[in-house]
Amino acid sequence: MNEFDLISKYFKPLASGFPGSLNLTDDAALIDVPEGMQLVITKDAICEGIHFIGDEAPALIAQKLLRTNLSDLAAKGAKPLCYFLAGMLPSTLSSSGLTRGSILSKKMDPRVKPEDDIVYFLQSFASGLAQDQKEFGIHLAGGDTTSTNGSLCLSLTALGLVPKGQMLKRSGAKIGDGIYVSGTLGDSALGLASSQAGQSNDGFLIRRYQLPEPRIELGLALRGIATSCMDISDGLVQDLGHVCKASNIGATIYTHQLPLSDAAKSQSNAILAALSGGDDYELLFTAKNLDVKSLPFPVAKIGEVKSGNEVKILDESGEKIEIEKKGFSHF
Amino acid sequence: MNEFDLISKYFKPLASGFPGSLNLTDDAALIDVPEGMQLVITKDAICEGIHFIGDEAPALIAQKLLRTNLSDLAAKGAKPLCYFLAGMLPSTLSSSGLTRGSILSKKMDPRVKPEDDIVYFLQSFASGLAQDQKEFGIHLAGGDTTSTNGSLCLSLTALGLVPKGQMLKRSGAKIGDGIYVSGTLGDSALGLASSQAGQSNDGFLIRRYQLPEPRIELGLALRGIATSCMDISDGLVQDLGHVCKASNIGATIYTHQLPLSDAAKSQSNAILAALSGGDDYELLFTAKNLDVKSLPFPVAKIGEVKSGNEVKILDESGEKIEIEKKGFSHF
Repeated sequence: MNEFDLISKYFKPLASGFPGSLNLTDDAALIDVPEGMQLVITKDAICEGIHFIGDEAPALIAQKLLRTNLSDLAAKGAKPLCYFLAGMLPSTLSSSGLTRGSILSKKMDPRVKPEDDIVYFLQSFASGLAQDQKEFGIHLAGGDTTSTNGSLCLSLTALGLVPKGQMLKRSGAKIGDGIYVSGTLGDSALGLASSQAGQSNDGFLIRRYQLPEPRIELGLALRGIATSCMDISDGLVQDLGHVCKASNIGATIYTHQLPLSDAAKSQSNAILAALSGGDDYELLFTAKNLDVKSLPFPVAKIGEVKSGNEVKILDESGEKIEIEKKGFSHF
Repeated sequence: MNEFDLISKYFKPLASGFPGSLNLTDDAALIDVPEGMQLVITKDAICEGIHFIGDEAPALIAQKLLRTNLSDLAAKGAKPLCYFLAGMLPSTLSSSGLTRGSILSKKMDPRVKPEDDIVYFLQSFASGLAQDQKEFGIHLAGGDTTSTNGSLCLSLTALGLVPKGQMLKRSGAKIGDGIYVSGTLGDSALGLASSQAGQSNDGFLIRRYQLPEPRIELGLALRGIATSCMDISDGLVQDLGHVCKASNIGATIYTHQLPLSDAAKSQSNAILAALSGGDDYELLFTAKNLDVKSLPFPVAKIGEVKSGNEVKILDESGEKIEIEKKGFSHF
């Protein structure tokens, strides 16, 4: 199968429910934006060995890719519409490739011939996308598939819709607002660390790393309620710093109020992971007089918006905590 | 400098002219689509060693990336609006990298210290984008920068606007229409081949490979005139095959009518390069009773739309020509 047969077999079915995709048979997609709505657009890329380990099932890699982008839409209060996918696939995955250099292939069924690598990969990858398209109501609208001499990289551009003027922004937090996060923090960083250390566990933590849960419903519910919002992908303290900068405010958070899962609590470094671990993909937002019970998903108050421009961390006894690494930076 | 300083220094200036970018300080961009208009969206990725040689100046790589996407917008008759960029940069480019493994660094000024690699790269890369933003009236609206363990890959999503119902499509060609192409064909493939063979030349052909010219003005002029349109990126015969399939027609083209540059004519395999060489980024379109002089850019008639579903190639004496490789496929 050549490139066009592969696209037709594995990707066209993902686009058939979205007329704007033109069934992936044209150079571009054609998107209508309903009157009174605005488009929210985000683009995230993930690479083997950086954002995913590389021995996951391709379906799981596809889901992480889509979900990291959906998490951005959730944080903006946007309803998912469609996405564009660029797959940069190692040439060792190609039907003409002779070696199995990619770590992606290591865990493959030994009965699969090398020339089937790409078919196996795309089959699994597309099945992951299909599952999440159904779960999150989004469709493939276009993209590009190319070979690379390097390792697997994937880039995705996701489009969502918001009523005009209602996008949640990083700016807008006001002194006196409460600071909130959804779900639990630190699971993902702890899961990655214990997996890398070869520790056995019940799989909950590493699952949190591999399969983030974009908080779409919560984001929609926060329209008109949150004064600022973003998703936590690079670590709470670093990301809260971005909100402080955009809103021109300071923040105080309390370590004993950080929401931790039972699995995280069993680890010695749970608080540090919650403060600075990456890949949480939970929502971080500010709001005034919030009734948390009115929301469709559990959120915890972790602090307050203050004057100034720094993020202050206090422990249970009111002592100020300094952490060396506030979050993840690629360079 | 960390990731955020780098984005702020090199990418923020590229976004400042486009309010929807929110100055790259939020999780997503916010796009308004004027009433009566539709969005045309395309996404192309390019990788080191596949789409560019790797020893080009980063500015030139940036321009090729942007222009391959702009060429898609041109082919759809869309006016460029904004773009999203994902840079997957080899960790050897990083300020913490110790080796200069990337071929990108090979031709660098030896006085540049390894820790400056990424600064040098981004400076040049951003300057290429800035130049083309001015030339084509487009702005950066968002994106992602990440490290990869592999080689350099770049992905770009470009947005353009068309009046409702006026996008040029691949479907729509009718029996009896003329088949036209813009500019000259085959230069790019010949340039790449002669560069790879170490042949010296005046630089025109390799320049055509490195710096495609998106035919934006021509695309806009073809609204309401072309019955079908696409850009030639994978080779004329293969791409014309896509038009035939989408329009459910056949095509006959004549080798003696293929527009060749003087530089191409001096090469022995010019006709084959024009028929099946990649990276032309010229427009291929069909139209009825076209007055070519009314168009803002030179186009040549190369054949006619016929019944059937195959692309027939005839030489000057009317003999049918078969070519083995109709164009480029990644897999």
